[in-house]
Amino acid sequence: MNVNQMNVKRDMKINELMEEFSASGVLGAGRVGRSCELLANMLEEENMSIFMSVAGPLVPGGLRNIIASMIKNKQIDVLVTSGANITHDLLESFGGKHYRNYGFDDEELNEAGMGRIGDIYTKSNDFEVFETKITEIISKIAIKLTNPNNSGNKPNIISISNFLYEVGSLIDDENSILKLAAENQIPIFAPGLIDSMLGLQLWMFTQENDLVLDALADMHDFSDIVFESPKVGAIILGGGLPKHYTLASNLLRGGLDAAIQITMDRSETGSLSGAPLEEAKSWSKAKCGSNLVSVVGDVTILFPLILAGALDKITSK
Amino acid sequence: MNVNQMNVKRDMKINELMEEFSASGVLGAGRVGRSCELLANMLEEENMSIFMSVAGPLVPGGLRNIIASMIKNKQIDVLVTSGANITHDLLESFGGKHYRNYGFDDEELNEAGMGRIGDIYTKSNDFEVFETKITEIISKIAIKLTNPNNSGNKPNIISISNFLYEVGSLIDDENSILKLAAENQIPIFAPGLIDSMLGLQLWMFTQENDLVLDALADMHDFSDIVFESPKVGAIILGGGLPKHYTLASNLLRGGLDAAIQITMDRSETGSLSGAPLEEAKSWSKAKCGSNLVSVVGDVTILFPLILAGALDKITSK
Amino acid sequence: MNVNQMNVKRDMKINELMEEFSASGVLGAGRVGRSCELLANMLEEENMSIFMSVAGPLVPGGLRNIIASMIKNKQIDVLVTSGANITHDLLESFGGKHYRNYGFDDEELNEAGMGRIGDIYTKSNDFEVFETKITEIISKIAIKLTNPNNSGNKPNIISISNFLYEVGSLIDDENSILKLAAENQIPIFAPGLIDSMLGLQLWMFTQENDLVLDALADMHDFSDIVFESPKVGAIILGGGLPKHYTLASNLLRGGLDAAIQITMDRSETGSLSGAPLEEAKSWSKAKCGSNLVSVVGDVTILFPLILAGALDKITSK
Amino acid sequence: MNVNQMNVKRDMKINELMEEFSASGVLGAGRVGRSCELLANMLEEENMSIFMSVAGPLVPGGLRNIIASMIKNKQIDVLVTSGANITHDLLESFGGKHYRNYGFDDEELNEAGMGRIGDIYTKSNDFEVFETKITEIISKIAIKLTNPNNSGNKPNIISISNFLYEVGSLIDDENSILKLAAENQIPIFAPGLIDSMLGLQLWMFTQENDLVLDALADMHDFSDIVFESPKVGAIILGGGLPKHYTLASNLLRGGLDAAIQITMDRSETGSLSGAPLEEAKSWSKAKCGSNLVSVVGDVTILFPLILAGALDKITSK
Repeated sequence: MNVNQMNVKRDMKINELMEEFSASGVLGAGRVGRSCELLANMLEEENMSIFMSVAGPLVPGGLRNIIASMIKNKQIDVLVTSGANITHDLLESFGGKHYRNYGFDDEELNEAGMGRIGDIYTKSNDFEVFETKITEIISKIAIKLTNPNNSGNKPNIISISNFLYEVGSLIDDENSILKLAAENQIPIFAPGLIDSMLGLQLWMFTQENDLVLDALADMHDFSDIVFESPKVGAIILGGGLPKHYTLASNLLRGGLDAAIQITMDRSETGSLSGAPLEEAKSWSKAKCGSNLVSVVGDVTILFPLILAGALDKITSK
Repeated sequence: MNVNQMNVKRDMKINELMEEFSASGVLGAGRVGRSCELLANMLEEENMSIFMSVAGPLVPGGLRNIIASMIKNKQIDVLVTSGANITHDLLESFGGKHYRNYGFDDEELNEAGMGRIGDIYTKSNDFEVFETKITEIISKIAIKLTNPNNSGNKPNIISISNFLYEVGSLIDDENSILKLAAENQIPIFAPGLIDSMLGLQLWMFTQENDLVLDALADMHDFSDIVFESPKVGAIILGGGLPKHYTLASNLLRGGLDAAIQITMDRSETGSLSGAPLEEAKSWSKAKCGSNLVSVVGDVTILFPLILAGALDKITSK
Repeated sequence: MNVNQMNVKRDMKINELMEEFSASGVLGAGRVGRSCELLANMLEEENMSIFMSVAGPLVPGGLRNIIASMIKNKQIDVLVTSGANITHDLLESFGGKHYRNYGFDDEELNEAGMGRIGDIYTKSNDFEVFETKITEIISKIAIKLTNPNNSGNKPNIISISNFLYEVGSLIDDENSILKLAAENQIPIFAPGLIDSMLGLQLWMFTQENDLVLDALADMHDFSDIVFESPKVGAIILGGGLPKHYTLASNLLRGGLDAAIQITMDRSETGSLSGAPLEEAKSWSKAKCGSNLVSVVGDVTILFPLILAGALDKITSK
Repeated sequence: MNVNQMNVKRDMKINELMEEFSASGVLGAGRVGRSCELLANMLEEENMSIFMSVAGPLVPGGLRNIIASMIKNKQIDVLVTSGANITHDLLESFGGKHYRNYGFDDEELNEAGMGRIGDIYTKSNDFEVFETKITEIISKIAIKLTNPNNSGNKPNIISISNFLYEVGSLIDDENSILKLAAENQIPIFAPGLIDSMLGLQLWMFTQENDLVLDALADMHDFSDIVFESPKVGAIILGGGLPKHYTLASNLLRGGLDAAIQITMDRSETGSLSGAPLEEAKSWSKAKCGSNLVSVVGDVTILFPLILAGALDKITSK
């Protein structure tokens, strides 16, 4: 098979560029082309549940609406992410913003009350609002849990996923990932939730109140989804805990049927974040014969590009 | 200040090489030289608690004894790591091994019952032994928790850190990180514990038994250590949840006083794993004026090298 | 300034995605947005000469037509590249191709007469044709040089750039970079030309013929262009010698006025290939106050994307 | 084969650490262990010529003495490097230095007359001395070339390698790479020489004087060495033109017999700088069955470490 030389032109559509990438078929462009085709197939496949893992600062980094729209359009069935992305989703729901162009002098930023994530900035005022609002929400959830009508038999104990559902239900923001996930019954799993500003507020709440976040309970729900899905495809954005949890949960069913991943991490250190998806086959976390495409690069560039291309390739959804 | 040209010779000691690196002072060699000096200072500083975060496959990758010896010699006061490293520590305690030279055909490996982590391999037989043994240990811990003499007032509920302490106490292996940590009262925090083979076994146990792993409870103990330490220094190996949890916990005291990190991840994606330590200053996770050194490279090469060099620079401990 | 959350949709045009990237403004997406705007400005600026450096296997990797079209449309004024890209341009002119999907067993490939460049493959048959044809062309050029009507006063001596012009003039392929460059009077500089299959054939020719490739002579022409351009902008694809030569030549005029670069190399090793463009300011290779944007990623993905976006932003050319 | 867990201790010798790395055998430590063993074998093998390629700022970055000592001790037979490393070797020979700790504001550095290479700095005063001195040397060489006793039959024409030999002969600095190479008859090849400050001075000289640097002539000498060596081993530090030229020259003899490379570049872009050495087998630039080890990391850290370890493993040289 030949490498076709690519062409670009004025007024080009993203899907036309994807066709050029697929016709070239090599290096990064080839991988993007293949991942776009695979994503379209995954989204169209009726019997396939789509798990999406989101690591890295993708909500602060501009992908909040994109993730939210995938939930709204039921393009994904499960979201696995970090406590940080959930915190930043809530920060925007409570009126906060993410900022840019404040320079790289971290001591000056500290004095100005700004936190830095690469070239993204947060303001401490926004976090103060976050703390007040989230504490109110946690209180409401804790009260609900102790309500005698609460069907569960463990008062004060809640799984991470159920906690996030309750938070989402109490948010008044139609752009919120948490809100839309709650409305659309898309579960969010965040095994490392406690390691975030939201986790910190949860812990502070427990200093004077009785609330237990059950780290194991999520697996009951997650395993049900895994077992009940005829097929599972994964969209793996970044590495970390979200990637591992997504892969590992599929061990229960003999592995994923298809997956794309986008990561800038390298494979040589042995860390899962940079590991090629093929490695998952050895562990039965991806099926032998499954369709797997890894792309090396920045998720904020590549995922919008690949998703937009895939949307044009599907006839339904 | 000049860049001194380095020299190497036969029969060279590691510390002599570190002196050459420090005299050169630039690029990677300069960073290694500075991190070695800082690590020695951190280990010698009497009032400084040392937190070590360990991400990536460092136990399978040959650093198990090095981490264990740092615990034994009380060179660290807190260990923050992943469920995977804990699982692999136990795998070796139960007689399993890590293997090499089995090639890179993941479908063949799957059929041979081998899991691959880069160029490291595990055998399914070893994991079967692991599952049997860890389930026995979990059972013992669950029974202990329900004992009426159990001082806590929440039967069946345990924090992750306390669970790991109990596991360590029940292990019969003097090379075990968990065992040595339990013996030496060094707490292990693993906020993402459930996302591991150990976590999977824990969940399976809860399907027929009553056990709750309280994700928030660790912060009570961790925050006490953070508040009580006159100074805190961090050794950050790899990124991920362990790095973030180590930094974030120090927010409570206005930040770390000193830290070294070794990572192969890049900074441009905004992910914390590749972020320069300076960024932590903006968040008050490292103090303004704190001493921070980041080294880019493979932890399995660089940490043994830097630690060996630092041991020669300290007169006590 | 806020980070605007991005949106994607069906039937999206590349330029619409670029607008989303610019509105987000952070991480990789922000850099792509800014580089697209800057490239459009550079292409539109009447008084600005555009130098493009091309390193890495971009001709085998599918960018041959894109580079060729930029020459044809006079969007660039100078091309600086490697001997390898020139060799592969000629390989296609002589009927050869680049291939894909032949696996990664290099000893098997060797036996099958295939050379591998990442996931791109060449065939030895194509190189045999290349050798025959290029030797004919070299002979013609050598004869022309010894012609008494040859205006130069150094028979048998030719600069690298003039040699490439002569080759381009003798090629019969309207898709050829060399051909189009010769036709459009766009000089090609390849200071490392001898380090390539073309260089090897040149050397073999000199074993029985008298031909001298003058490594210094190019600078006469290149410096004239540099001095005569009111402004210079650079498009730097990959690093290596082409990047350095492009930057260094502009030292003669106090530096570049604007530049974008796309590279996957890191900055920490000190190598120029991964260095931020800002470093060039210290050397007066880029002007203080110049507009410089660096993007981290794979050129085969990012340059077609950025160029297509830029074409929509310009009204002329 | 098992992964042995590593140990470190006080007063540790580099070679002891290498033994630990080899016993672990996996990830980066394993690669360093294997490259150290291979380097020792290469240095001890009587019939093996050693070619060393040096890319990136290794002379400014502190490796000048190490390269010089390898020449002095005849541990290498050929050096292939960039014009920049040669320029910086001369800069130090003429009394200049490389500096550190001047910050990262490139516009300020420009005003202070300092050039930045990562965290290494040069001073314009040192370059002024360089220009005066090198021009004197070039003049002497040009005069020698026109001497009627000059045995060659092409007055004013010199190969790059012979030019560097002449420069080395005229330098008065026993630490100089060029000087030691000339004294010890170790040829230096620098196919991209003209792309450097030395190249710029050469070009300026040719504006008023008659001197031709013959880009093809080096291959006559280089190919003789390649053909006459019973075996060839390569030490490849960084990528770029020096790596490619080293590999490509060995095509003439069917490939290298052994090689180690140290690079921080990635393989996914297809650029040779990050390509695994195995790829060279497909091109017959490394022999099928040859012994090849690639290490990912910073050369300024890893090469002194690996070389010091290898010196202890050899009994001769």
